Amino acid sequence: MKLRKAVSLIDGISALLDWDQQTYMPEAGGKWRAKQIEYLAVLRHKLLLDPELKKEAENDSDPINRDGVLREIEKASKLPIDFVARKSKASSLAFQVWLRAKPENNFSLVAPHLEDLVALSKEEADLRGYKKDPYDALLDQYEWGGEVFWVEPLLKELLFKVKSSTQTKKKFPMPVVEQQTLCTKIINQLGLSSETSRLDSSAHPFCTTIGVGDYRITTRYDPDNLFSSLFSTLHEAGHCLYEAGLNSDQRGLPRGEAVSLGVHESQSRFYENIIGRSKEFCSFLSRVTGINDSDIYNEVNFVSPSLIRVEADEVTYSIHIVIRFLLELALLKGELTVQDLPSAWNELYEKHLGLKPSSDREGVLQDVHWYSGAFGYFPTYVLGNIYGGMLLEKIKKDISDFDLLVSEGQFSKINNWFKENIYQYGSEFKPKDLIERVTSEKISSKPFIEYLSLKHPFL
Amino acid sequence: MKLRKAVSLIDGISALLDWDQQTYMPEAGGKWRAKQIEYLAVLRHKLLLDPELKKEAENDSDPINRDGVLREIEKASKLPIDFVARKSKASSLAFQVWLRAKPENNFSLVAPHLEDLVALSKEEADLRGYKKDPYDALLDQYEWGGEVFWVEPLLKELLFKVKSSTQTKKKFPMPVVEQQTLCTKIINQLGLSSETSRLDSSAHPFCTTIGVGDYRITTRYDPDNLFSSLFSTLHEAGHCLYEAGLNSDQRGLPRGEAVSLGVHESQSRFYENIIGRSKEFCSFLSRVTGINDSDIYNEVNFVSPSLIRVEADEVTYSIHIVIRFLLELALLKGELTVQDLPSAWNELYEKHLGLKPSSDREGVLQDVHWYSGAFGYFPTYVLGNIYGGMLLEKIKKDISDFDLLVSEGQFSKINNWFKENIYQYGSEFKPKDLIERVTSEKISSKPFIEYLSLKHPFL
Repeated sequence: MKLRKAVSLIDGISALLDWDQQTYMPEAGGKWRAKQIEYLAVLRHKLLLDPELKKEAENDSDPINRDGVLREIEKASKLPIDFVARKSKASSLAFQVWLRAKPENNFSLVAPHLEDLVALSKEEADLRGYKKDPYDALLDQYEWGGEVFWVEPLLKELLFKVKSSTQTKKKFPMPVVEQQTLCTKIINQLGLSSETSRLDSSAHPFCTTIGVGDYRITTRYDPDNLFSSLFSTLHEAGHCLYEAGLNSDQRGLPRGEAVSLGVHESQSRFYENIIGRSKEFCSFLSRVTGINDSDIYNEVNFVSPSLIRVEADEVTYSIHIVIRFLLELALLKGELTVQDLPSAWNELYEKHLGLKPSSDREGVLQDVHWYSGAFGYFPTYVLGNIYGGMLLEKIKKDISDFDLLVSEGQFSKINNWFKENIYQYGSEFKPKDLIERVTSEKISSKPFIEYLSLKHPFL
Repeated sequence: MKLRKAVSLIDGISALLDWDQQTYMPEAGGKWRAKQIEYLAVLRHKLLLDPELKKEAENDSDPINRDGVLREIEKASKLPIDFVARKSKASSLAFQVWLRAKPENNFSLVAPHLEDLVALSKEEADLRGYKKDPYDALLDQYEWGGEVFWVEPLLKELLFKVKSSTQTKKKFPMPVVEQQTLCTKIINQLGLSSETSRLDSSAHPFCTTIGVGDYRITTRYDPDNLFSSLFSTLHEAGHCLYEAGLNSDQRGLPRGEAVSLGVHESQSRFYENIIGRSKEFCSFLSRVTGINDSDIYNEVNFVSPSLIRVEADEVTYSIHIVIRFLLELALLKGELTVQDLPSAWNELYEKHLGLKPSSDREGVLQDVHWYSGAFGYFPTYVLGNIYGGMLLEKIKKDISDFDLLVSEGQFSKINNWFKENIYQYGSEFKPKDLIERVTSEKISSKPFIEYLSLKHPFL
């Protein structure tokens, strides 16, 4: 499918434009960059609507690729090109304003733009169509087959009561250049070579695929806490292993593309949390860094309610997400207005975490997602946790020396397990079906909750 | 002209793909990257042939932009899309083979690919059309209005007899991180801010424009010789000042784009050589680095015949180019075969520089240009020297304290002169006409030769 492969070339190019914007681009280049990104977004959409692509897909003898591309075309055909351009422009505008509004702690500056994006998202849900809930149409973009009726109860189970910790935290300073060396060493150890991947720094860590053989990670460095960069790196390395482990001959086709953000997060969170915050990995890290293993374990498993999602511990994290999910659900249903959003945010934080943001910067302005038009995205983070819990249960059955391998820093057997059970399927199955198929269990939050409870008996 | 501006967006994206390939891309990403670059090259060509663009241009009220775009469309329409794809593929293949052939010193490996590219270039000349010489059609792409009949005599005047120097060279080592700091300081001093530009390193230094407000320079570092990175940086900064000094509202249109590679080289060589290698700039550098000024002057004005173009001194450099020009002229005329090219190369080096390459790696394999399909490109380097000589004569008349400003590291008056006399015109005039208009003189190599003779009395 030549045309579908062209779409994939464009995806890689767009990824590079974004990577560069977040790592090396001179500040003044932002305006022009937004135009370049928008141009490619519209071009991509036009290619998906090209009747030639439909012909190509229909004539493809591989049913997974054929049906996958036809489904993609059908989804794209719901959105007129004009709508795609309008949403891309509005998102990029809102993002620019948010960049100012956040440091200025001025929600009202960006509120009208957020109203536009909520309206556009409602319009998008109507254009895309849905069975039950407008939100389903948005969620499905990030999590194929995701629907409120089964996602909401799973998520709500994670609204733990977290107690404030009185433990005093130790400091783990390390010069940035040494952190870079350490993080690079760890990703090599995880199985990513410098021939196919690289590590840079950015304000918000991410992983991106520029093309086959070109996978990139970013992290951020805090000279006072080496675990900040290290655990971001572990997270992004999990994403990167998934991307690099996909069938590269099928890149651009459903068989060779990651299936969803939720499954992606199951991989990143597996390496960051389930592996990274385990006693065994801490003992491995202790040997690499010379830091006492129980000091590491206590530091990376410190749990206490917090206001900022990206700094949250493994337990509190899910609560942050569920709050956002409930709010965006209400926004999309029309039960909540943008004007009332900051106070609704603060109320939910008080209710579920016992904390009240002292400013919108610490509250509703903290995350970029809504201000770049991404509604329906947040749940994928927690679905990743839930899938990860189920995968942990299964991998421990299949690999009896799992704990030993982790403590020795031996990851090839674990990587191969993921390759065989997740990566090789690309987008063959819906995420939920894939996880149920691999684990032979019905989707459930229980394994994740059990995993957390073992570490944190107060839950 | 919306569509022409889209072409410009693509140009910036392609520039980023290339910049990234030369600076940060993991090695294994090369194959996919070549596909991305080819995809955009074909897309660009299709856009130029889009009848809508022609309509837009015809309806534009600005005669410079209208005529410029119509000329561009006419030129592009000479090449079928199939030819553009064929040449792009053959060039990228030959380039990949050359990357191996050069270190292996194996010309025969790449010779068949070079034969393909010579044949494609002849085909291209025929498709593009020409009045007198097939070579004119190729040269005109890089140097609008360039023709053998006036370029050849100008170039041949620069076949100086250069004597071998017996002078022993001093060493100027500096740690790479300090060189980076120094180079950054110098480009800031020249008027390029970090808000709009950045400096990276690559095997071959270059300057590129990713978009309005985003201009990038690369250099390369030799820990044993700080002047290697510094003078590469000066050269690329000259290019960058031109790009950043163009009318940004007109970016993508003839009024806002650089007119030719020759004029571009006149700017880079002006900053690298005419300014950079002057007594006055050496005295400024001496104050910045603490190195004795006459030591700097002697180092950066050391003249002796050499085999490698990119390491050549200011006098020998032009001879390197004229040799390549004579050879490619003969190749295109069919007077020389690819098989005989290495020996023809070696003979000309012996004749004009008294040196014989000991291997093809030091000879015909040294430069990438031919192996990436660029015939007609080399003369622009020397045209840049010739234009630069003429501009020097004029700027010294217009700015009476030129030498003083250089010795004080004050460049804003000089930059403004170039803005007023070169940059602001974009592609309004043919390069030769622009230079003759600015200087009120007929095009001539004399000012450049006089400039060199003042520094090097043996010429």
